[in-house]
Amino acid sequence: MSTLAASARLLDRLPLVPPGVLVDEERARANIAGMAAKAAASGVRLRPHVKTHDNVGVGRWFREAGVACATVSSLAMAERFAADGWTDLTLAVLVNPRELPRLADLAWRLAERGGALGLVVDTPEAARAVRHVAGDTAALWIKVDTGYGRSGIPWNDAERLRRVAESAACTGLLTHAGHSYQAAPAALPALFAETAAHLAAARTATERPGLLLSVGDTPTCTAVERFDGVDEVRPGNFVFYDLMQRAARVCGDEQLAAGLACPVLAIDTARHRLVLHGGAVHLSKEALPGAAGPVFGYLGVLTPAGFGPVLTEAPVTAVSQEHGIVTIDPAHWDDLTDGLRTGDAVLVFPVHACLTCNLHDTMATTTGRLLARDAGGSR
Amino acid sequence: MSTLAASARLLDRLPLVPPGVLVDEERARANIAGMAAKAAASGVRLRPHVKTHDNVGVGRWFREAGVACATVSSLAMAERFAADGWTDLTLAVLVNPRELPRLADLAWRLAERGGALGLVVDTPEAARAVRHVAGDTAALWIKVDTGYGRSGIPWNDAERLRRVAESAACTGLLTHAGHSYQAAPAALPALFAETAAHLAAARTATERPGLLLSVGDTPTCTAVERFDGVDEVRPGNFVFYDLMQRAARVCGDEQLAAGLACPVLAIDTARHRLVLHGGAVHLSKEALPGAAGPVFGYLGVLTPAGFGPVLTEAPVTAVSQEHGIVTIDPAHWDDLTDGLRTGDAVLVFPVHACLTCNLHDTMATTTGRLLARDAGGSR
Repeated sequence: MSTLAASARLLDRLPLVPPGVLVDEERARANIAGMAAKAAASGVRLRPHVKTHDNVGVGRWFREAGVACATVSSLAMAERFAADGWTDLTLAVLVNPRELPRLADLAWRLAERGGALGLVVDTPEAARAVRHVAGDTAALWIKVDTGYGRSGIPWNDAERLRRVAESAACTGLLTHAGHSYQAAPAALPALFAETAAHLAAARTATERPGLLLSVGDTPTCTAVERFDGVDEVRPGNFVFYDLMQRAARVCGDEQLAAGLACPVLAIDTARHRLVLHGGAVHLSKEALPGAAGPVFGYLGVLTPAGFGPVLTEAPVTAVSQEHGIVTIDPAHWDDLTDGLRTGDAVLVFPVHACLTCNLHDTMATTTGRLLARDAGGSR
Repeated sequence: MSTLAASARLLDRLPLVPPGVLVDEERARANIAGMAAKAAASGVRLRPHVKTHDNVGVGRWFREAGVACATVSSLAMAERFAADGWTDLTLAVLVNPRELPRLADLAWRLAERGGALGLVVDTPEAARAVRHVAGDTAALWIKVDTGYGRSGIPWNDAERLRRVAESAACTGLLTHAGHSYQAAPAALPALFAETAAHLAAARTATERPGLLLSVGDTPTCTAVERFDGVDEVRPGNFVFYDLMQRAARVCGDEQLAAGLACPVLAIDTARHRLVLHGGAVHLSKEALPGAAGPVFGYLGVLTPAGFGPVLTEAPVTAVSQEHGIVTIDPAHWDDLTDGLRTGDAVLVFPVHACLTCNLHDTMATTTGRLLARDAGGSR
């Protein structure tokens, strides 16, 4: 039986209606364990960003690995994870003043359970407003820009940093070095060190040596041996990784832990193509540059032992809203597709796992468990 | 008061929690009425594709304009619209054999209500399988490729066309001329005519002159004066249009009927930038080429009369998962942003309305009505 036909027979046994996200639980748990062990060895708190999966079932794997706190990117996500037992959450997006009433309410509820809600600000007005409505129940983090250039106070703007730190009792300084996603692999350890140094310089400017330092991005957190110079790390993507991290040589093929199972709607033997029900609304439009144009994913396979290799001979070369086109290297056509039928599912490794997962309310594991986005079972 | 501050005060009055989709109902109804009138004048059936909005509330505007049938792109979407009273639906994606049991069930239910479910096939096996499980309750359409190259039988492959047409009783031939999205505006009427001619040639090959011809794409359906040579048109995007259609000169600014209301999280006066809570998971990653890099949207404004102009001086120049960055022409900074505060909402016109709408379960109208994706009120 061909590679894809054998994979399809295994996909048939899963409680998943394709197009749907499939997770190799063993790989994901290994990714979690590796990052948790590195944080423990460094004496640093791991506060993983859960936006990558946004799924309380996956969140429980983190808790089972001893992770007690998490990062979220929206109020709704915070409420989903709080409802599943998380009590120590940081919302790592600048506070939206209109959400303060609901944020304060959540902060009080987490405080009652012995936890805290971390909120991020970059102005004295926002810091005072949080303290005004949330009292001491919220942990205030000052957003610092250490070079990414998206948001936050520039790390060397001592005057603005001091003004915010003076305006209300703060817990620490927080940054996201998002420029690491464009950095060369060899440059990542130095970028982590630079980020920590810039954050430490920002702390010096505030004249508050007790402030904690929080950083977080998957490329640098994966690349360094130890988390030196910071108190907390907040990577997120590492739980699943994806083709973007693979292309940046941040992860290996055997660390890719999420794929999209897609039904094959047509098998075009003449053009060596598969038409999938799996397009922009299932996979996202994120692409990597390829030799013959953009690549929106590569096929993979399910084996009895979990995910198999990345089939670079079978790239997704086009996506429209609902469809994906896989263009297979003719030299591999027979080996890959012999016996494959329409309706069979194939596995697609996504370019950007966070965006793909966001498009699906449930996931299945390769061992047949269903995982819901929230404790109630729906989005 | 500045343009954006005045717009924010109006957005404050709407029952919408940003980031959320806002629809100018008057514009959308005008877009619907225009297409319906053209179809009626041409003696052609309008079967709009509802995947653009995927919202039964918007679907009712079509029914109120006299549209009795629709096109969908998934079984779940078909079920949502059937539950809201639609009885004549075509699922314009090749049939997935694994979904046939549920498709047949839906076909029987629609037939009981005097309607029909249209299903699309490109092989004799699929055609026979549909007839086997759905009897006469399904309308069978043969998928034809008239030049887009995505899926379907090439229009000039007489042998394959005839074999499918012989295998089961069919209703017609269906194509999607998706290459129209890349065509020059002046070429669109000729492309419509070519598509109709290719489909007619395919019908000749089947030796079944009674087969109906169905085409559908917003660019050509907008560009032509009359729908000559076909029996049915299935455009979808035209209900809202978007910046992609604007850039292709398919629509005018006053036809843009959907925007994303986003909270402003930071106002960076030094760099003339706004940081929005509105990123890839709210807007999608679809981009247009701009003079200074990709454009992921343009700001717009809400006025007492509905949507205002497109502010090309205020492009969304970057999106990450949760954030969007608006980089404003310094010459317009004061006029646009004076009095704007963090927490205020701004309106973003999306590049691809279909992908943006897919990311939101509810929409609000500029007159304060909430519209749910399905009749039950949730996704």
